[in-house]
Amino acid sequence: MYQLGIVKRNIQRADRSAVDQLANFGSATVHEAMGRLGLMKPYLRPIYAGAHVAGTAVTVLLHPGDNWMMHVAAEQIREGDVVVAAVTADCTDGFFGDLLATSFQARGARGLIIDAGVRDIKDLTAMGFPVWSKAISAKGTIKATLGSVNITVVCAGAVVHAGDVIVADDDGVVVVPAALAQQTADAAAVREANEAAKRAKFAVGVLGLDLYDMRGTLAKAGLKYID
Amino acid sequence: MYQLGIVKRNIQRADRSAVDQLANFGSATVHEAMGRLGLMKPYLRPIYAGAHVAGTAVTVLLHPGDNWMMHVAAEQIREGDVVVAAVTADCTDGFFGDLLATSFQARGARGLIIDAGVRDIKDLTAMGFPVWSKAISAKGTIKATLGSVNITVVCAGAVVHAGDVIVADDDGVVVVPAALAQQTADAAAVREANEAAKRAKFAVGVLGLDLYDMRGTLAKAGLKYID
Amino acid sequence: MYQLGIVKRNIQRADRSAVDQLANFGSATVHEAMGRLGLMKPYLRPIYAGAHVAGTAVTVLLHPGDNWMMHVAAEQIREGDVVVAAVTADCTDGFFGDLLATSFQARGARGLIIDAGVRDIKDLTAMGFPVWSKAISAKGTIKATLGSVNITVVCAGAVVHAGDVIVADDDGVVVVPAALAQQTADAAAVREANEAAKRAKFAVGVLGLDLYDMRGTLAKAGLKYID
Amino acid sequence: MYQLGIVKRNIQRADRSAVDQLANFGSATVHEAMGRLGLMKPYLRPIYAGAHVAGTAVTVLLHPGDNWMMHVAAEQIREGDVVVAAVTADCTDGFFGDLLATSFQARGARGLIIDAGVRDIKDLTAMGFPVWSKAISAKGTIKATLGSVNITVVCAGAVVHAGDVIVADDDGVVVVPAALAQQTADAAAVREANEAAKRAKFAVGVLGLDLYDMRGTLAKAGLKYID
Amino acid sequence: MYQLGIVKRNIQRADRSAVDQLANFGSATVHEAMGRLGLMKPYLRPIYAGAHVAGTAVTVLLHPGDNWMMHVAAEQIREGDVVVAAVTADCTDGFFGDLLATSFQARGARGLIIDAGVRDIKDLTAMGFPVWSKAISAKGTIKATLGSVNITVVCAGAVVHAGDVIVADDDGVVVVPAALAQQTADAAAVREANEAAKRAKFAVGVLGLDLYDMRGTLAKAGLKYID
Amino acid sequence: MYQLGIVKRNIQRADRSAVDQLANFGSATVHEAMGRLGLMKPYLRPIYAGAHVAGTAVTVLLHPGDNWMMHVAAEQIREGDVVVAAVTADCTDGFFGDLLATSFQARGARGLIIDAGVRDIKDLTAMGFPVWSKAISAKGTIKATLGSVNITVVCAGAVVHAGDVIVADDDGVVVVPAALAQQTADAAAVREANEAAKRAKFAVGVLGLDLYDMRGTLAKAGLKYID
Repeated sequence: MYQLGIVKRNIQRADRSAVDQLANFGSATVHEAMGRLGLMKPYLRPIYAGAHVAGTAVTVLLHPGDNWMMHVAAEQIREGDVVVAAVTADCTDGFFGDLLATSFQARGARGLIIDAGVRDIKDLTAMGFPVWSKAISAKGTIKATLGSVNITVVCAGAVVHAGDVIVADDDGVVVVPAALAQQTADAAAVREANEAAKRAKFAVGVLGLDLYDMRGTLAKAGLKYID
Repeated sequence: MYQLGIVKRNIQRADRSAVDQLANFGSATVHEAMGRLGLMKPYLRPIYAGAHVAGTAVTVLLHPGDNWMMHVAAEQIREGDVVVAAVTADCTDGFFGDLLATSFQARGARGLIIDAGVRDIKDLTAMGFPVWSKAISAKGTIKATLGSVNITVVCAGAVVHAGDVIVADDDGVVVVPAALAQQTADAAAVREANEAAKRAKFAVGVLGLDLYDMRGTLAKAGLKYID
Repeated sequence: MYQLGIVKRNIQRADRSAVDQLANFGSATVHEAMGRLGLMKPYLRPIYAGAHVAGTAVTVLLHPGDNWMMHVAAEQIREGDVVVAAVTADCTDGFFGDLLATSFQARGARGLIIDAGVRDIKDLTAMGFPVWSKAISAKGTIKATLGSVNITVVCAGAVVHAGDVIVADDDGVVVVPAALAQQTADAAAVREANEAAKRAKFAVGVLGLDLYDMRGTLAKAGLKYID
Repeated sequence: MYQLGIVKRNIQRADRSAVDQLANFGSATVHEAMGRLGLMKPYLRPIYAGAHVAGTAVTVLLHPGDNWMMHVAAEQIREGDVVVAAVTADCTDGFFGDLLATSFQARGARGLIIDAGVRDIKDLTAMGFPVWSKAISAKGTIKATLGSVNITVVCAGAVVHAGDVIVADDDGVVVVPAALAQQTADAAAVREANEAAKRAKFAVGVLGLDLYDMRGTLAKAGLKYID
Repeated sequence: MYQLGIVKRNIQRADRSAVDQLANFGSATVHEAMGRLGLMKPYLRPIYAGAHVAGTAVTVLLHPGDNWMMHVAAEQIREGDVVVAAVTADCTDGFFGDLLATSFQARGARGLIIDAGVRDIKDLTAMGFPVWSKAISAKGTIKATLGSVNITVVCAGAVVHAGDVIVADDDGVVVVPAALAQQTADAAAVREANEAAKRAKFAVGVLGLDLYDMRGTLAKAGLKYID
Repeated sequence: MYQLGIVKRNIQRADRSAVDQLANFGSATVHEAMGRLGLMKPYLRPIYAGAHVAGTAVTVLLHPGDNWMMHVAAEQIREGDVVVAAVTADCTDGFFGDLLATSFQARGARGLIIDAGVRDIKDLTAMGFPVWSKAISAKGTIKATLGSVNITVVCAGAVVHAGDVIVADDDGVVVVPAALAQQTADAAAVREANEAAKRAKFAVGVLGLDLYDMRGTLAKAGLKYID
């Protein structure tokens, strides 16, 4: 009835400059800069440590056990995109492996976020193509059912519109709505600047109790010290 | 009544040459070559990255919290075997550590697949003895109850007969019935050959849509492109 | 009514010498030396491989989504402590990141055990500050509700009193009551000594069946060998 | 930055007549009528068997362990609404009990869908106030952090806009976008009509193989019968 | 390559008289009579309380999200069968609802065991058609991929051959190999007879310590009583 | 080394009058009266709806798959006790069934809380012997390893000392330290009295916003209403 069997070709990608600025920050900083919103669930994990990408979302909606739309999505990828794959029901199958990764990478994709499984992880690691997934599984898929590309999806608990910014690192995956990309980058920069100063103080033994001036509030809340 | 307290000494191991051929392929390729069958559940994970083994199964059925039969199994190991340990109920205890690994390795085992927990993983990693398990746990076990060795077991959702071929890598664990070892190796070789050609095309930007000639089928299924 | 809003300043830490001895043993050995008790649940995993710490517990009780008490706990840390954080209900938020780690490390903490989530894991790894957690999550927390510091807590299924010894490595986390520290260290040393001899025998092919003299007991229990 | 601390007072509720029509169908039928879309994850379960409601969504976004916004949401409820509560991170606390249920019911709410825990279930059952939740937990919550009311949320994997139709029964919970309410009701009616005829045939032993004329397709796909 | 796309028409069902005898015992008793083997995992739960069936297995192997083979299986059902449905990968979709239940019931099936989801549970309950499943989900499935009927499958961790006896009640589901049906029924009868006498003694306050003469063994094992 | 193989015969049970008063309150009320502490994890569920018990804890520590100590515990039960069973590692086996229930009930036990599985639930329901467990499983156990009775245990995340008060109902299980029984009962009574008045107001449409005077605090926190 709606949304299945559709490919949106012209999507409004977030401003490239803002995306590049967001690439300087980790997912935790970006999520805080968003007002503590926009995170995908923590069950999504990178297939190798140390990957850190920012890019614009090409979304794909899949059915359990069926990766047909991944090939349809490949054509919509432009340089700097990150593919975000949602599934209509829980599934851990390996929807994606080294062949699709070769294709995605050749089209300019910086990574894949998938609310399901992935395989060929040794190859993907060697290729430097990062994937955040909820499972690693050798289980293959079929190509029989239509999903959609570039519609709004829910991936690991977060709403993603085509063109939104994805920032992913060892801590997780955060989605920044395209319209908020620049202001989020600005807020993240402010936050990061503040943190450097704090880190220096913590390193010489200053306590958060004093740095954040918490002792009064804690006492007022009723905290009691016992010897 | 049946199957507990039994050790089968003479088992029909899969043909060694076929096993060696299967060792050239990943679990995903072998599973596809089997008609997308034979995989253990993806909750089994290797204790370190990069391990890749193929071998013939020596099976052992354990009870929760009791690893007595592991010692019985050790005697049945021959060069080139992989031990496959099932448990009669869900348990995450560490049934296996560096002492048993030393014994298994000395007997010629190439690795362990266990539907439970393992411990001493730093030592096992240093020894190069790979284990695929569902948990890592320091919890020890007792030696009080009889299980069996080399009976047919269910391990992580897959049926394993003693002598079947086990192929395990970063993507998971697949079981090939002994009688199908050679034909599976042949099918895997064909599949792998095809993939190399496809990979080269994907790498220069050819789309799966064209390589697999999907556009017509997708249109017929009702896929619509929207600008 | 009880236990919330309390900070115990003077706690009885386990004997330093015993702690240092325990640092020589893995969590599996210590747990066995305790009579197979004291382990936290295996869902706690280290954020990087190879970490191995022993220290005295500073405990903190948190509420879901609120890390206020972490700052209160920081002040109670002394050289050689390990912070043990429990939460009053299941939560995977990232209660701890690189700023708090800088503070804890400056105060002398050797690591953190947390029955919840942690973030900034790339930074924590670079700093060499090990954390055992049940999740990795970029999700931040607020500072609004009083918990307690150095009360007795339940962390990942184990009771921890302030001052108890924590031993943590790749296999998991074990708690040794302060009063039992020395006798546990002694028992661990005996156990470890025995294991070296056994390992040498296993390495040359001796079977556990013979080393532990199990054949008679197995036969008596009814084990049957079938050809 | 965006979306937190907001209450939308004027929302576009789905057409009442369409909602009432949808109330005649189960969640499975409605989901099929939507093209197999719109379902929340199956971990949401009703607190008692037999409840079946349809209503318009008043949405609320909560933080873990904090139910403050539930009281804000209560004021926005009109006769025929169903409250849909999302949380910014996984949490099983009991955000809702008999007092809030009394308030919601007095305001005209037909039920609650919550991606977290609920308590006082004996009372809620006696009151006939149905709740679909992911947990039952006596754990209480605090009132300290702003969320929002009537913004778009993700609840148990599904996007819900204020005013959308919620249909919930023993099989689960489905969301129908307000704009699609009437056409979904029409499609559901057609589907249900077809099912009655089929049921009668199945009841006298007609096979789906014949009723759906599958034998040819199955044979063409390669199905083989073996005696 | 093997096992997919096959329907075995002639299967060796367990002896009807033995099945009828087994119907008198609960799953716990039967599993004990088997030597504590044969149970499916406890995540399988009945959709309503109080159901208790025994029957001969018609097996079906499905793919995730695809219930095509259910219709193929229907034709193979005879009076007194229980259908056992396995899936090649984890999936919670609702593969089965009231239409298929009407068909299965008309063919003589006594129930369904499915390692996946089921829907229309209100109707199934009203019809008195019991289902043991791992999920309840309104999510529908497609009909696109061949599985098999009456091959050996693994369902919820247990091996099931076509014709084996299934005994299912509120405590779970147990599989009795067809060849062991009569001896298991006999052993269950002996066990049940013994239990009645024990129950009477327990009811008047006799302790298991005395009834089973455990005091000596416990003391020998080192049990100490402290006042 | 410590705690295993011990039975404490003389335990300090909470005051009977306080226990009887606590029996008038649900687990949610008692937990709130304790300062939102003392709850077991919500994965513990009653085997039938509507049970509500309060009693003094007899504790038992079991090993996975071994229920030997249950018989030792039976002898320590007095009228009005509730048995609390912990296990040294995660296990879902059915440690308890109708025979032990008959024995426990004859000794005066009001129920069982077990951090593992239970079986014979139809019989237990018919007997009116309530059990809160984390699983229902027909899987039986052996009698081979010593645990302890009436030592301090951790059950489903909560510390329980022998003699503490257990209050369990449809919402969960809460532990009240024996020394706090009377003051918790008093606090619960106050709380309950307050709730009745509030309920009456909510029932006629008064909002929590007004009843709790939240509008000012919400505005101060920054809540904005949008039309």
